[in-house]
Amino acid sequence: MIFTASQIQAMDRTYRLNLINSFPGMKPVNLVGTISSEGLSNLAIISSVVHIGSDPPLIGFMMRPSNTPRHTYTNIKEANEFSINMVTHKFVDRAHFTSGKFSANVSEFQSCGFTESYIAGYHAPLVKESPVKAILSFEEEVHLSSSNSILIVGKIQCLWLQESTLQEDGNINMEKCRPVAVSGLGTYFQPTQLASFPYVGSKVKGLR
Amino acid sequence: MIFTASQIQAMDRTYRLNLINSFPGMKPVNLVGTISSEGLSNLAIISSVVHIGSDPPLIGFMMRPSNTPRHTYTNIKEANEFSINMVTHKFVDRAHFTSGKFSANVSEFQSCGFTESYIAGYHAPLVKESPVKAILSFEEEVHLSSSNSILIVGKIQCLWLQESTLQEDGNINMEKCRPVAVSGLGTYFQPTQLASFPYVGSKVKGLR
Repeated sequence: MIFTASQIQAMDRTYRLNLINSFPGMKPVNLVGTISSEGLSNLAIISSVVHIGSDPPLIGFMMRPSNTPRHTYTNIKEANEFSINMVTHKFVDRAHFTSGKFSANVSEFQSCGFTESYIAGYHAPLVKESPVKAILSFEEEVHLSSSNSILIVGKIQCLWLQESTLQEDGNINMEKCRPVAVSGLGTYFQPTQLASFPYVGSKVKGLR
Repeated sequence: MIFTASQIQAMDRTYRLNLINSFPGMKPVNLVGTISSEGLSNLAIISSVVHIGSDPPLIGFMMRPSNTPRHTYTNIKEANEFSINMVTHKFVDRAHFTSGKFSANVSEFQSCGFTESYIAGYHAPLVKESPVKAILSFEEEVHLSSSNSILIVGKIQCLWLQESTLQEDGNINMEKCRPVAVSGLGTYFQPTQLASFPYVGSKVKGLR
């Protein structure tokens, strides 16, 4: 079946939200950790983390400053710093719960049962429960004229992981970390490894 | 263990590529379909598709015009159109193979064993084998000053899916479509549903 742009436009808001949010397929699930100038920590679940570059190591994510998570945006601009923390099956329920609208004076770390951890020299709080996490310095924000969205870009300043999950080739072993993926706004998946393919070299001739 | 920015900078290039590309966790896997002004189709695997908005339905992805896939960028700018096609376990091997550097006069559809399909009124080729796909009009490109990357933003003009995979609430059923996820540059995962959580309402009191 085919939906045209005008049919999508005419859909019920929640129906359209579900459809368009599930269109990309499996999305990564991470928690963004920030702290306000008054020292109040904040934690928000995001499914839009995207790899931007490796040299320098740049990671981005989408946000709408006019919507939740408002505090995340303000905190990033104030502290010039944030953390990204991988979400696993062990605490995906509590991570999802950070998407609720909490009062400005309540930290989602406390409300949702996460433990703050810090690295000397940095302000942004990390999620102790997370097996892979990083402190990023705020590099730039890019406003999209086609929507009221912003791409936030950060540079990894400090990357924390368990030594046992790091492979010889630099890849993080996902069968050991067990991150979840999300479809739409709240359907979570546990991935199992299917196949690993090498880099495809230059000037290949085709499969057949 | 902790890697600092200078330690990451000093890593072997491939090691760093693997590490930083696997940092976000599970990434969506899609094929971008385009066509040149001479009528030659092109297909490129991407793991950076990101939901930007639902009203209007905007989808973005990252690319480096200076690197592969060059043809994709040129074609999008020429035709003002492209397609995004979900990758499943059935053809993930062939989808990965599109990342090879083929000659300019060879279509990855042919080289990698995919079937082109078209929707009347649009130019961009769709992947017949894909269970969820869309034609998008090119809306904007955003250059990042922190890297030589571009965020391409498209608006869904036509969304194609099998009726049996569409749920009553508008969500696409991933257990039926079975898209894969990718970690790093080439480790693919098959996700199984773990949990589905409702939207978290406003002014919640916390889990405890």
